Amino acid sequence: MVQTYIEQHRQRFLDELIAWLRIPSVSADSRHTSDVRRAAIYLKEKLAEAGAEKTELIETPGHPVVYAEKIIDPALPTVLVYGHYDVQPPDPLELWTSPPFEPVIRDEKIFARGACDDKGQVYMHVKALEIMNRLNALPCNIKFMVEGEEEVGSAHLAEFVKQNRNRLKADVILISDTALISLDTPSITVGLRGLSYVEVEVTGPNRDLHSGVYGGAVANPINVLAKMIAALHDDDGRVAIPGFYNKVAMLTDEERRALNLAPFNLDQYKQELGLADVHGEKGYTTLERTGIRPTLDVNGIWGGYTGEGAKTVLPSKANAKISMRLVPHQDPNEITSLFTKHFLSLAPASVKVKVTPLHGGEPVVTPTDSKAFRAASRAFEEVWGKTPIPTRDGGSIPIVALFKKELGLDTVLMGFGLDSDAIHSPNEHYGLINFFRGTETIVAFYRHFAAGN
Amino acid sequence: MVQTYIEQHRQRFLDELIAWLRIPSVSADSRHTSDVRRAAIYLKEKLAEAGAEKTELIETPGHPVVYAEKIIDPALPTVLVYGHYDVQPPDPLELWTSPPFEPVIRDEKIFARGACDDKGQVYMHVKALEIMNRLNALPCNIKFMVEGEEEVGSAHLAEFVKQNRNRLKADVILISDTALISLDTPSITVGLRGLSYVEVEVTGPNRDLHSGVYGGAVANPINVLAKMIAALHDDDGRVAIPGFYNKVAMLTDEERRALNLAPFNLDQYKQELGLADVHGEKGYTTLERTGIRPTLDVNGIWGGYTGEGAKTVLPSKANAKISMRLVPHQDPNEITSLFTKHFLSLAPASVKVKVTPLHGGEPVVTPTDSKAFRAASRAFEEVWGKTPIPTRDGGSIPIVALFKKELGLDTVLMGFGLDSDAIHSPNEHYGLINFFRGTETIVAFYRHFAAGN
Repeated sequence: MVQTYIEQHRQRFLDELIAWLRIPSVSADSRHTSDVRRAAIYLKEKLAEAGAEKTELIETPGHPVVYAEKIIDPALPTVLVYGHYDVQPPDPLELWTSPPFEPVIRDEKIFARGACDDKGQVYMHVKALEIMNRLNALPCNIKFMVEGEEEVGSAHLAEFVKQNRNRLKADVILISDTALISLDTPSITVGLRGLSYVEVEVTGPNRDLHSGVYGGAVANPINVLAKMIAALHDDDGRVAIPGFYNKVAMLTDEERRALNLAPFNLDQYKQELGLADVHGEKGYTTLERTGIRPTLDVNGIWGGYTGEGAKTVLPSKANAKISMRLVPHQDPNEITSLFTKHFLSLAPASVKVKVTPLHGGEPVVTPTDSKAFRAASRAFEEVWGKTPIPTRDGGSIPIVALFKKELGLDTVLMGFGLDSDAIHSPNEHYGLINFFRGTETIVAFYRHFAAGN
Repeated sequence: MVQTYIEQHRQRFLDELIAWLRIPSVSADSRHTSDVRRAAIYLKEKLAEAGAEKTELIETPGHPVVYAEKIIDPALPTVLVYGHYDVQPPDPLELWTSPPFEPVIRDEKIFARGACDDKGQVYMHVKALEIMNRLNALPCNIKFMVEGEEEVGSAHLAEFVKQNRNRLKADVILISDTALISLDTPSITVGLRGLSYVEVEVTGPNRDLHSGVYGGAVANPINVLAKMIAALHDDDGRVAIPGFYNKVAMLTDEERRALNLAPFNLDQYKQELGLADVHGEKGYTTLERTGIRPTLDVNGIWGGYTGEGAKTVLPSKANAKISMRLVPHQDPNEITSLFTKHFLSLAPASVKVKVTPLHGGEPVVTPTDSKAFRAASRAFEEVWGKTPIPTRDGGSIPIVALFKKELGLDTVLMGFGLDSDAIHSPNEHYGLINFFRGTETIVAFYRHFAAGN
């Protein structure tokens, strides 16, 4: 029945998603503020058409939250679906094969910014609601809360959740914003790294100077920034901030062995990324480096002359965006403080340094012994023919810790992307098979969850 | 007589220079190619109006050279004036108080890109010719050769000089493209540092990645580039490239003492640049660091996300522009090779590195015992009331070594700028007093030079 319904409405499902992907809901760029709102309104309308009630745009000091619900019986359990309708900036534009906001289907994949992260994954839930509604198969209550600020740190979400505790009452949170190991090896994410993201600015002289006249006598902020960044890792690839590892949960040998059992082919990984070698903390495997170990990466750097040709400038300022991925039980605020203190201490007297925290999120581990996790596992078995493997992802979804803290609710991270989907990169895409099988798996989840076995 | 003529034509001189400064002759930016040519044509016309003959735009594979001459008697000595009509790119535009190509006079200074470097300084020579011509006071022959590619490395000039040896025959080269110590302390530059300028590119993964998914397991090219840049200096601020100092001419204690006699106030220097401290090679003074010691500066760096907000990208590439200022007897080609070899050796196996040489120039020292130098010195004494101090500048004018090699000619560097003129920076300017006194000094130079005493 479910498969038949999907088959019959396949093209409409895709057309609707493509229309949504056309709206450039880039939350980080204030020139797109009205587009972000348009994307929210589109989602609200589609939720209403799918059978949701009380659909609403709830204002925040930033971009609005889209809320919707379908309560069939207050005595039944309630699932709260969370996702986000905002997307990452699309640059560098020149590396896209087709424009990021003109979705096209190639090789059975939709190419567009947000195709996977997270509009494509959210839209599976909208269509799952429609299917259950039309087939009279919704077995429990369902609520939607889809925000527009996930890609910029969800600054207003904590306040929103606090002020809407009653409205958000539920039994479990369901999120599709993570990836499967592969189409052959379904998985459910049970651990997520946290995040501390800062911007730093190093100022040397009070104006740009001629490097011939002043070079060698005045601190060059780019050279100084490079030296400071270099000092953030030691020779073993460990983060060299004092206290950084103090609260890192150490896994037992048994847990590490289990984690490394996940299918992973290092040669294939290197080949797919065009790498002669991997690179990371000494003493850990690639799966451990991205799953259970904290990291520090420069996400952007700029300073001086970056145009065509040669300009002999000694710039006044150099800047970088730096993020740290955190693991249990690191605290993002504490890590941001430790970073700031250490970074300032690295600066020579010849420069001024400013550190601006941009956003943070706590690392989380989700339970694997809950009714909801079992329902998700069975849904995968039913649709994919295999028991999903529990994995720890490197990415961060700060809302998961927030839901636990503010609503006391656990989350099931039932994501259907693939690491190769190029989210946050040029040519982001989402497989049609991921989209349709994912939709089917979500419908199966509700049946198993409501049955409670 | 000369002063009177300048007084009478003061406003026209400025109007003509301002009209020239309005033409954005940015040689580094191919969008300005036609503007560069317009600036050349304007100069050619003004040279003809000033009395030059055989004015001509001589084509090169790049921007044209403006040539002009006034031969009054082949038996008399000939001065060849060199300069450049191209200018540095004006960015960052937002830091200009008035637009770079809309010249304005404020506080007795002309503000515009090129006001000093080098259009303003070249135009003094055009007006000196006019004055000598109108007053029947030209005492020797004069040739002009003004190029349009100085700010991008004068790539086609060596070939041009070789092919025009006869036309360029002269007794001395006269260049105004350097600075005075101050308006109270006139000086003549007798040493210039050379240059090796390269662009480097570090490539990690073959595409931009999500830093949450891959961070910690894959080389981040920005972090790697920062580490490589940091390794280019040791803890004493010395350039850490093997062999870099092998050919550096060491000055005697006596020479260093003499160099440090030039008026210099460290507190004032720091205050003027907004610095808590200076920064450079251990064991050398600020005057030595910029005059007799080679240096390495990053002139630009870019990679990853540099827009508004936070984007958790692990970029595929990071780039930097790096220049080294050289002193006698370092060879720019050899230094570029040493840099390239060392930089590649710093790269871990997890990245690919590319080094592209952009341009170079040899360091030079000009004689202080020549007839032309003595004439310049007397011209300063006459107009400024003080004997000019011989100085070594940090900047590079590669043409000086080229003229010596190809034409066997020495150069007199009679520049009238000030270090505070913000050349290569926002709000470049040139003092009206520098312009008019400079013009007068140039006229006096010709008289002393032709008199030969």
